[in-house]
Amino acid sequence: MTDIENVPEVEVQKRISRFQEILAKKNLDGALIMQNVDIFYFSGTIQNSILFLPQRGEPCLMVQKSLDRAREESPLKNIVPMNNRKSLFQLIGELDGDNFRSVGIEMDVLPTSYYLWLKEHLPTCQFVDVSEDIRRLRMIKSPYEVNQIRKATEVVHWGFMKLGEIIKEGMTELEVDAHLAFMARRNGHMGIMRMRAWNQEMTISHVLSGENGAVTTFLNSPHGGTGNTPAMAQGAGNRRLRRNEPIGIDYGVGINGYMSDQFRTFLIGEISPDLERAHDCCVRIHEMLQREARPGVPCSNLYFLSRGLAQKEGYGDFFMGYGEGQVPFIGHGIGLEIDEYPLIAPRFSQELKEGMVFAFEPTLIFPGAGVIGVEDDYLVTASGLERLTLTDQGLIRIRG
Amino acid sequence: MTDIENVPEVEVQKRISRFQEILAKKNLDGALIMQNVDIFYFSGTIQNSILFLPQRGEPCLMVQKSLDRAREESPLKNIVPMNNRKSLFQLIGELDGDNFRSVGIEMDVLPTSYYLWLKEHLPTCQFVDVSEDIRRLRMIKSPYEVNQIRKATEVVHWGFMKLGEIIKEGMTELEVDAHLAFMARRNGHMGIMRMRAWNQEMTISHVLSGENGAVTTFLNSPHGGTGNTPAMAQGAGNRRLRRNEPIGIDYGVGINGYMSDQFRTFLIGEISPDLERAHDCCVRIHEMLQREARPGVPCSNLYFLSRGLAQKEGYGDFFMGYGEGQVPFIGHGIGLEIDEYPLIAPRFSQELKEGMVFAFEPTLIFPGAGVIGVEDDYLVTASGLERLTLTDQGLIRIRG
Repeated sequence: MTDIENVPEVEVQKRISRFQEILAKKNLDGALIMQNVDIFYFSGTIQNSILFLPQRGEPCLMVQKSLDRAREESPLKNIVPMNNRKSLFQLIGELDGDNFRSVGIEMDVLPTSYYLWLKEHLPTCQFVDVSEDIRRLRMIKSPYEVNQIRKATEVVHWGFMKLGEIIKEGMTELEVDAHLAFMARRNGHMGIMRMRAWNQEMTISHVLSGENGAVTTFLNSPHGGTGNTPAMAQGAGNRRLRRNEPIGIDYGVGINGYMSDQFRTFLIGEISPDLERAHDCCVRIHEMLQREARPGVPCSNLYFLSRGLAQKEGYGDFFMGYGEGQVPFIGHGIGLEIDEYPLIAPRFSQELKEGMVFAFEPTLIFPGAGVIGVEDDYLVTASGLERLTLTDQGLIRIRG
Repeated sequence: MTDIENVPEVEVQKRISRFQEILAKKNLDGALIMQNVDIFYFSGTIQNSILFLPQRGEPCLMVQKSLDRAREESPLKNIVPMNNRKSLFQLIGELDGDNFRSVGIEMDVLPTSYYLWLKEHLPTCQFVDVSEDIRRLRMIKSPYEVNQIRKATEVVHWGFMKLGEIIKEGMTELEVDAHLAFMARRNGHMGIMRMRAWNQEMTISHVLSGENGAVTTFLNSPHGGTGNTPAMAQGAGNRRLRRNEPIGIDYGVGINGYMSDQFRTFLIGEISPDLERAHDCCVRIHEMLQREARPGVPCSNLYFLSRGLAQKEGYGDFFMGYGEGQVPFIGHGIGLEIDEYPLIAPRFSQELKEGMVFAFEPTLIFPGAGVIGVEDDYLVTASGLERLTLTDQGLIRIRG
């Protein structure tokens, strides 16, 4: 664990100039960035603020709280106090008032009341949704960003290895989750996992034993779990781990904002040859990915190849969920949010590009029996893929 | 730890009929409830769905995923599948198409793109913000809800007591946080803490040692902390606990959706008589609250009385933060979200009512020295206040 690390100035500058190119192409005078994660991406701080990002020239970070801290954390040159939300409009007037007519905002996350408030106070402005542009920009990671994700994969690996010594028959799922929460935080996890999608939330891990692995839920994920309350109906519950059943564990950790997301299947004793064969199928889907994925390959192709492999082995009905629990993707970008681009999904025809980082999670769900899966994190390189995950892909067998 | 507990039918029915009275008063034909926490409040499930709530008659929960689970968890009678978001409009047409003209929505949280999508597909509808009405309704807790908060206060108490055995000189703040995360989850914490306000996020605890207790941040809270990254700039960091300094610990836990939020000041060795006196002042502010608070008393009065006490003892500059870190409240409602009504704040003139539950947190921040505070959870009863917190209000002294 190191001391606090600020985002380097060159990172922030590159991100801003790339986004300014997009603004120019879209003929937008600028953007008001208001979501904390996007603000962090473009400024290096999540202090309570709004980022005024003109098409050309220096952006201005207008800060409500804490101004001192924003100035310490962010390499931006122009950081000014914003006494209250209303003084935003005065600041905009001073900055670029007359030339601020078509303005990008993050409509996918910005609450309606903020949008209506902007429209009321800037009645001559035309507001345009730039959330898709921001998501596409954030899809390509710099070496700095990949390095942060690498640190997160180390913490996940350490946790998976340590779990081998911790898990015991009779322990509840919730106890296992508690150990994962402990290890994550002790090793520098930033304390939350972030999802962008509306109403989506997650716990730090899913511990899914036996038939609980086949319980579906609101989360846009192939596995769900009972949770321990309908108020957070996902992840670990009160069920006790048994011998000879699959124990699926999804584990996520964030370091300096960047998340790793992985899944392994644990077991105490033996699982049926059928389930072992299902696990082999997941590993073979990973092997196919490592052979086929390289810049230029459409993401959708990788999904279809994966599904084809699963279908050929008779797992079509169980692939990425069962029944209403089936989800239409096998991978998703990871970064500052866990649900980034690219999607490895039938409708996502985007080609792979160098610098993309995604979690790839072939998962088979068998009602009554549980979940089998292997999820690893990958970086797209110039020639193919680099596996960022440090853990072996095999079943993790607990002694005793 | 018990098994999974569904929300009782009578709870859901009462909440719906009270909200229908509000809809009638506001002349609204109905509401579309779309945020997961509000959906949980009115239906007992957070499955991926939209709740159609007409002014009169049976509400309809339209579920994308998981339908089976929504039917298991929710006592509502009318739960139907919604194949995709677009089929919402067909369903509305079938339900109440012609009479659905003025519709309440949660504008404080609903993303702009959803709002614009609703407007596009229901062009004859007038949309009205009902988020304030929902927050006022949720402000008054039923005995069932109070009981859930009581369970959460038990977990917090257990954690505070256990910490007395765990904390040692030289341990990092992050290690202490890790233990709190472990104990919470093991004792049934649902795995996340929920805030309603835009861009506000929280970790399960704030562990703030020595001068770190005076570090402000984006969080709307009197204390902040360094955190261990600018990407989540709050809470525990890498600083090691020392003898003879205040160690402020804020701890929150959620059981069946309902949260408890408390703060205690720990110490190893001694703190200066000045800081001890500051702690006494916080305890006396609590004693004042317990004398003065009862149904009918305006929340703002309680804030002014508290501030007056702090000022009289010379703590005006340090009360509820220092400098730009000062926040304009001393208490906040707790329930399904941590930032509920009532606010104990200068501008919140709402009178106390039986059934309100709030966290009350007199806090003094001394730059360079740290944070001193006592936060307890209270229920407003017919005659006054009941303290829900189980832990003594004194400084918690660690042996060794």
